[in-house]
Amino acid sequence: MPDTTIRILMNGVTGRMGYRQHLLRSVLAIRDDGGIPLPDGGRLQVEPVLVGRNADKLRRLAAQHDVADWTTDLDSALAEDPATVYFDAQVTGERRKAILKAAAAGKHVYTEKPTAESVAEGQELVDSASQHGIINGVVHDKLYLPGLLKLKRLVDSGFFGRILSVRGEFGYWVFEGDGVPAQRPSWNYRAEDGGGVVLDMFCHWNYVLENLFGSVEAVTARAVTHIPERWDERGERYDATADDAAYAIFELAGGIIAQVNSSWAVRVERKELVEFQVDGTLGSAVAGLFECRVQPRDLTPMPVWNPDLPTTEDFRSQWSPVPDNDTFGNGFRAQWEEFLLDVHHGRPHPYDFAAGVRGLELVDAGLRSSAEGRRIPMAGAGR
Amino acid sequence: MPDTTIRILMNGVTGRMGYRQHLLRSVLAIRDDGGIPLPDGGRLQVEPVLVGRNADKLRRLAAQHDVADWTTDLDSALAEDPATVYFDAQVTGERRKAILKAAAAGKHVYTEKPTAESVAEGQELVDSASQHGIINGVVHDKLYLPGLLKLKRLVDSGFFGRILSVRGEFGYWVFEGDGVPAQRPSWNYRAEDGGGVVLDMFCHWNYVLENLFGSVEAVTARAVTHIPERWDERGERYDATADDAAYAIFELAGGIIAQVNSSWAVRVERKELVEFQVDGTLGSAVAGLFECRVQPRDLTPMPVWNPDLPTTEDFRSQWSPVPDNDTFGNGFRAQWEEFLLDVHHGRPHPYDFAAGVRGLELVDAGLRSSAEGRRIPMAGAGR
Amino acid sequence: MPDTTIRILMNGVTGRMGYRQHLLRSVLAIRDDGGIPLPDGGRLQVEPVLVGRNADKLRRLAAQHDVADWTTDLDSALAEDPATVYFDAQVTGERRKAILKAAAAGKHVYTEKPTAESVAEGQELVDSASQHGIINGVVHDKLYLPGLLKLKRLVDSGFFGRILSVRGEFGYWVFEGDGVPAQRPSWNYRAEDGGGVVLDMFCHWNYVLENLFGSVEAVTARAVTHIPERWDERGERYDATADDAAYAIFELAGGIIAQVNSSWAVRVERKELVEFQVDGTLGSAVAGLFECRVQPRDLTPMPVWNPDLPTTEDFRSQWSPVPDNDTFGNGFRAQWEEFLLDVHHGRPHPYDFAAGVRGLELVDAGLRSSAEGRRIPMAGAGR
Amino acid sequence: MPDTTIRILMNGVTGRMGYRQHLLRSVLAIRDDGGIPLPDGGRLQVEPVLVGRNADKLRRLAAQHDVADWTTDLDSALAEDPATVYFDAQVTGERRKAILKAAAAGKHVYTEKPTAESVAEGQELVDSASQHGIINGVVHDKLYLPGLLKLKRLVDSGFFGRILSVRGEFGYWVFEGDGVPAQRPSWNYRAEDGGGVVLDMFCHWNYVLENLFGSVEAVTARAVTHIPERWDERGERYDATADDAAYAIFELAGGIIAQVNSSWAVRVERKELVEFQVDGTLGSAVAGLFECRVQPRDLTPMPVWNPDLPTTEDFRSQWSPVPDNDTFGNGFRAQWEEFLLDVHHGRPHPYDFAAGVRGLELVDAGLRSSAEGRRIPMAGAGR
Repeated sequence: MPDTTIRILMNGVTGRMGYRQHLLRSVLAIRDDGGIPLPDGGRLQVEPVLVGRNADKLRRLAAQHDVADWTTDLDSALAEDPATVYFDAQVTGERRKAILKAAAAGKHVYTEKPTAESVAEGQELVDSASQHGIINGVVHDKLYLPGLLKLKRLVDSGFFGRILSVRGEFGYWVFEGDGVPAQRPSWNYRAEDGGGVVLDMFCHWNYVLENLFGSVEAVTARAVTHIPERWDERGERYDATADDAAYAIFELAGGIIAQVNSSWAVRVERKELVEFQVDGTLGSAVAGLFECRVQPRDLTPMPVWNPDLPTTEDFRSQWSPVPDNDTFGNGFRAQWEEFLLDVHHGRPHPYDFAAGVRGLELVDAGLRSSAEGRRIPMAGAGR
Repeated sequence: MPDTTIRILMNGVTGRMGYRQHLLRSVLAIRDDGGIPLPDGGRLQVEPVLVGRNADKLRRLAAQHDVADWTTDLDSALAEDPATVYFDAQVTGERRKAILKAAAAGKHVYTEKPTAESVAEGQELVDSASQHGIINGVVHDKLYLPGLLKLKRLVDSGFFGRILSVRGEFGYWVFEGDGVPAQRPSWNYRAEDGGGVVLDMFCHWNYVLENLFGSVEAVTARAVTHIPERWDERGERYDATADDAAYAIFELAGGIIAQVNSSWAVRVERKELVEFQVDGTLGSAVAGLFECRVQPRDLTPMPVWNPDLPTTEDFRSQWSPVPDNDTFGNGFRAQWEEFLLDVHHGRPHPYDFAAGVRGLELVDAGLRSSAEGRRIPMAGAGR
Repeated sequence: MPDTTIRILMNGVTGRMGYRQHLLRSVLAIRDDGGIPLPDGGRLQVEPVLVGRNADKLRRLAAQHDVADWTTDLDSALAEDPATVYFDAQVTGERRKAILKAAAAGKHVYTEKPTAESVAEGQELVDSASQHGIINGVVHDKLYLPGLLKLKRLVDSGFFGRILSVRGEFGYWVFEGDGVPAQRPSWNYRAEDGGGVVLDMFCHWNYVLENLFGSVEAVTARAVTHIPERWDERGERYDATADDAAYAIFELAGGIIAQVNSSWAVRVERKELVEFQVDGTLGSAVAGLFECRVQPRDLTPMPVWNPDLPTTEDFRSQWSPVPDNDTFGNGFRAQWEEFLLDVHHGRPHPYDFAAGVRGLELVDAGLRSSAEGRRIPMAGAGR
Repeated sequence: MPDTTIRILMNGVTGRMGYRQHLLRSVLAIRDDGGIPLPDGGRLQVEPVLVGRNADKLRRLAAQHDVADWTTDLDSALAEDPATVYFDAQVTGERRKAILKAAAAGKHVYTEKPTAESVAEGQELVDSASQHGIINGVVHDKLYLPGLLKLKRLVDSGFFGRILSVRGEFGYWVFEGDGVPAQRPSWNYRAEDGGGVVLDMFCHWNYVLENLFGSVEAVTARAVTHIPERWDERGERYDATADDAAYAIFELAGGIIAQVNSSWAVRVERKELVEFQVDGTLGSAVAGLFECRVQPRDLTPMPVWNPDLPTTEDFRSQWSPVPDNDTFGNGFRAQWEEFLLDVHHGRPHPYDFAAGVRGLELVDAGLRSSAEGRRIPMAGAGR
C-alpha cells in the first residue's frame, strides 16, 4: 500500500509549548514512528516545515531534528509551498491575521487556543474557514487526559444511566505575594491586562461540558474578587481588579445541571486541583484530570438523615477506582493524529473553530450574568 | 442565695420529639440536676405543667415523672396558671393560634419550628410578641451540634481572618422506591403535599449562615426535579412534582459568598451527609454536623496548575481535625438553658420568632429566583 | 375498608420447624400485627386452626398462643371447617395423602418440602391441584435469605447485562466420625436410607437457578463417593454407599452455563458454605446466603496472562459489598404473606407444586447422567 | 574427576523465547557456571552450536556470547557435527520435519511445545524416537513455577493423605475490544484461525494433572462461546467462532475427580489467574502459579449447615501460606539441567514426546465430549 505524506507549515514552534508538545512530542514523534497507521494498511506520514521570525533559531532546530525546510517568510510559504496544513502556535495577538491568510490560501488549519481575542474575531475565523472550505481544528488537549478519558468511557458505556448533574470544583490558594511570592503572574489578577478566572477557565468548562455531557444552554454565575490587594513579581502592591472566583450554574442539554466553582482563593480538600462529580440514575463518578472513582447504583448506601446521630459509615471508602485498562499516550499527539486523519479523509474535525467561539461566548455570558444578576441563555449554542 | 423557679406550660409533649427531647432530656433533666447554675451562685429551677388533649396519657406521664400538674384546658391554664413560660411542640397547624393566645396572656414563648405555615403568619407572631413585650425563642438545635459548635469556635477565635466564601454540600441518594423501598416519605416529593428540598432545607441554611457568618442579603438559586417518577410506601408509581435538588448562591453580609447545593439525587463522596467548607484569608475549615478539620494559612500548600503532570500531593491528608476540647451535651437542653436564662435576665433570646420568619423568607426567595431566572435581594433581612 | 380474614388449617405445627417458623414467626406474627396490609388500605387477617395427633399438645399450644380452635380430626375439619387454606408440615411420608384430601375438599394448599417421595407422586399432587382449581405453594425459604435477595435485586436491575455463567460451590468437610463425631446424621451417607448429596441439594439448586437465572434445560453430572467408610452416631463403622460429592454442569434457558459443585468432602476457602459467582457482560457478583459482592464492568481489571511474572494485583480487593438497603425479615413469614395475598387475589403462587416436581426431576436426571456418562436434557422443564 | 561436555545443536534461538529463555538463561548460564554438578563430584559442561537461517544474526550472536560454532545448514550439521543433542525452538510448522531428521541422525532431542500440529503427527515423533532409541523431552516449564513446585512438594510428602478431588479455576475477563482494546489477539477467538480456550489450555491441564495427581482417564466437558461478537486489533467487529469457556470434569487415575473451568469471560475473585484447590483425607491446599496455602485435617473447622444463621467464621483466614524454603530458579534452566542429566545417564526424560501427544489427545477428547454430550474415556492414556 503506497504511503501518503502531509506537509505542514508549523508557525511558532520556537516557543516552549509549540516546540515541546507540538513539534517534538507530536509531529516529529509521528514522523519517527513512520507515520500514522491507516485502516487500509498504509501509513500517513508527516513532513514539517518550520516557520518563524528568528532565522538562527529555525536553522538550528531544523538541523538538530533533521527537518529539511524552514522559512521566515510566511506569506511566500502560504503562496508557494505545497504544504496542505497550517499550524499556529504564535502568541494570541498574532494568530487571527495569520489564520485568515492561511485559510484564504486554502490550507487546512490547526491552532493553539484561544483562537482569537473576542467572540467577534473568533466568529470571523469560523466564517473564513467555512467560506474557503477548509478543515479546521483547535487544541483541546485536556480532553485527552486519563481522568477525563476514563470519565468519557463511563459516559459512553452507559454507566450513569440518565445523567442528572455535575459538580465541578476547580481551584487552589494563589498566594498574595507578600510573605511568599505568588505562584501565578500578576496580570492574571488585573482586569485591564486580560486577567480573571472566568476568562481563564470558562473556555475549558465549555469544551469539557459539551463533549462529555451536552452543550451549555444557559448560565447563571457570580464572579467576585475575594482578594482585592496583591503583590506583583517585583514585590510591589497592586489592586487586584479581576475576578478571582466564580460560582456558576450551567444548564446543559437534556436538563443536566452543572454547578461549577472556580477559584484562586480556596484551599484544596480534594484529590486533584479540579474534580467533577457526575451523578446519574445508575451510578456516580468523581473524576480529576488523572484519576476517576465510581459508585454504581447497586452499591449505593441508603443513609438516613438523622442529625442527632454521628455518621457511622465511611462514605469515601465506598467509591472504587476505575482501572486504566489502556496506555494513555501524550494528549497533544493523540489530537494531532486525529486531526491529520480528518484532513486525510476530508472530514470535519470535531474540535473546530466554532467550538473555540462557543468557549469565548460562555466567558461573555458568565460575566454578563454576574453583572446583571440574571440567568443568560446561550442563544447560539449548538449551532 | 435563694433559688428562683420558672413554671412552664408544656403543650404537645405527648409526641415523640416533645416528650423525648424537650420534656425528658431537657426540662426534667434540668429539674433533676437541681436547676441551672446562675452567676450569683444561685440556681434557676424549673417546674413543668403538662398540657395536652389526652387526659389519660397526661396523667400517666405526670405520675411516671413526678410532675405535679397537668391539664387538658389550655385556655384556663393561660388565664389562671402562674406559669411565666409557654412552650409549644404541637403539630404546625395548631401552633399559631396557641402562641397568639399565650403572647396575649403575657407568657414568654419558646416553640418548635416552623413557627407558622407562611411568611405572613410567621410575621403575625413576631408582631404579637413585640406588641406584648414577651421574650420569644425558636428551636435551633442544629447550631448546638459538635461540628457547628467547633466551626463557631473557629469563627469567634479569628482563625479564618477575613472569611471569603462558604461551600455547602448537603444530600444523599434517596431511592426511588421501585427495587428497594425509599428511605423518605413520598409526600416529600409532591409539591401539592408540601414537599421539596428548598422548603425542607433553606430554613436550616438561613440560621446556620446568619449565625455563623452573616445574614443573607441575596439569593440566586436553581431548583429542579431530577427524578420525576417515584414509587410510594405501597409500591405504587407517582409523579414527583416537588424539587429534589437546589443549586444556590447566597450573598452574605460582608461580601461572603455561600454556594450551597442541596440534593436528594446525589451520591455521597464526603465524610458527612452535610459539609461546609469555609475559606478565609488566614485559614480554611471543613465542618460537618459532628466533625471539623482545618488548614491554617501557614500550612497551605502552593500547588501549581499543570494539567500535564499527575498530582503528587495528598491534599486531603493536609487537613487536621479540630479536637473537641469540650463535652458537647444534648443540643436541645443547651438551648433550653439559654432561653430560660434569657427569660430570667429579661433579655431577648437570639434565635427568636423573627429568625423563624427569615428562614421562611429565604424559602420563598429561593423558589422565586429559580422560577424567574434572577438574583433576589432579601429586602427585609437583618431587620 | 372492611378487613378480610383467611382461616388456615395448620397440620403438623407441633414439630420444631412447623411450630417455630410457620406458626410462631409467620402466622401468629401476622395475626398479632393486625394482618397483612392490602393495597386498598384494608388488611388481610389470619385465623389459624391447629391440626395434629396429640390433643394435649394442641390444647396447650392453643391456650398459650390464644388460638381459638384445634382438632385431631383432619377429615372432619376438611369437610366442615370454613377454613380456605390447608398447610402441611407433617413428615414427608404423611404428606401426599393429606394434601390430596385437602385439594379434593377445595382447600388452597401450602406445604413444606419435599412435596412427595418421587417425581410420580409429586406429579400426582400437581394434577390434583390443577383438577380442583386450587392455589398451591411450596416453601422456598432460601430464596428469601439476604444474599440471594441482593443477588435477585442485581439480576432485576440489569446489573449483569447478559448473564453468561454461574459458578456454584457448596460444601464443607463432614468428619468421618472416628476421631471426632460427624456433624451430620449417618443416614445421609447411606443410599439405602435416602442419603446422598445429589438428593439433598439438587432440589435447592433447581429453584435457585430457575428463579434467579432461568430454567434448567440439561444436566451433566458426576456423582461420586469420595469417603467410602464412615462411623455412625454410636461410633460404629459403616459403608458409605451414597454419593458425597457431585460435580455438575447445568445448562439454563438463554444459554447460561451453571457449573455447580456440591460436596461433603471439601475444605472451605470461601466466605460462606455456599457461594455463587455470576458473570455477565456488564458485571459479576459473588453471593452467599447472607452477603453479596460485585465487580462492575467499568471496574474490571485487565490482567495479562504471563505465567513467568508473579501476580501484582490484589484481585479480591477489587470487589465491593452490596449494601443491604433494606431490612430483611423472616423468610418464612415473607413467603406466607405472599402466598396469602395470592389466595386473596385468586392468582397462582409462583413457587407451586410444579416447582417442587421440577426439583425432584433434576435429582433423577443428575443421578442418571452420572450413571450413564451422558448429558440429560430436561424434557419437561418450564412446563 | 574429569568433566564431560555435551555439545548441543540449538535451532531457532534467534527468536525471543529461544534466545532469552533457552540460550541465554539456560544453556549459556549453565556454561558460565562451569556446568552442572554431577553426583560423582565432576561437572557436566555444555557447548552450544547455533543453527538458523540468518547468517548475520547467527554470527553476531555467536560473537557476542563467545560461542565458537554456528551454521545455517542443519542437514550438514546433523550429518557431520559431533553434537549429541538437538534442540528445536522453531515455529511449530517447521518442527516435525527437523525433529524427524535429528532422530534419524541419532541425536537426542529436546523441543519447545507443541511438538506437532495434530495427534497423528505428534505420534509420528513418538514412534521415530522409539525406533531410533533416542532420549526425548518437551518443555514443561510451568511445572517448575513456585506455586506448583510447592504443591508437588505437598503431594510427595503425603500431606494430603488420599487425594480425593481437584478444583481448578483459570480465567479472567478478556475485553471485547469495543470501548477499551482487547488484551489478547483476535485470532484466539476465531476457530478457523486455530483459536479456542480448549486448544489453548487443555494441553497444560494434562501435564499439570498427570504429573501432580495422576493420568487423565476420562473427560466430560462443555465448551461454549459466551461472547459471540468481538472487535479486532483495528477496531473492527468480527464473529467470535471459537469456544471462550470450557467447563470440564476430568477423571484421574485412582478415582480422583478434577473439575476445571477455563474461561476468558469470567471476573477474577481469586488470588491468581489460575488456582487449583486440592482436597485429601488429611488436608487441603489452594495453589496458584506462585503461591500455595493449606489447611491440614487437624485445623479443619466443623461448620454446621444452617442457612438461617449468618456465617460467623472467617473461613479464608483459616488457611496458612506454604513457605518457599527454597530459591526457585528459572524454570527453563531447571528442566534443561534435568534433561541433560537424563542424557548423560542414558535414562528417559519424564516429560517426553508421548506427554506432548497426550496433551493433544485431551484437547480432541474435550471438544468431542462437548459436541456429543457424553463422557469420553482416554483410551491410550498412560501408555
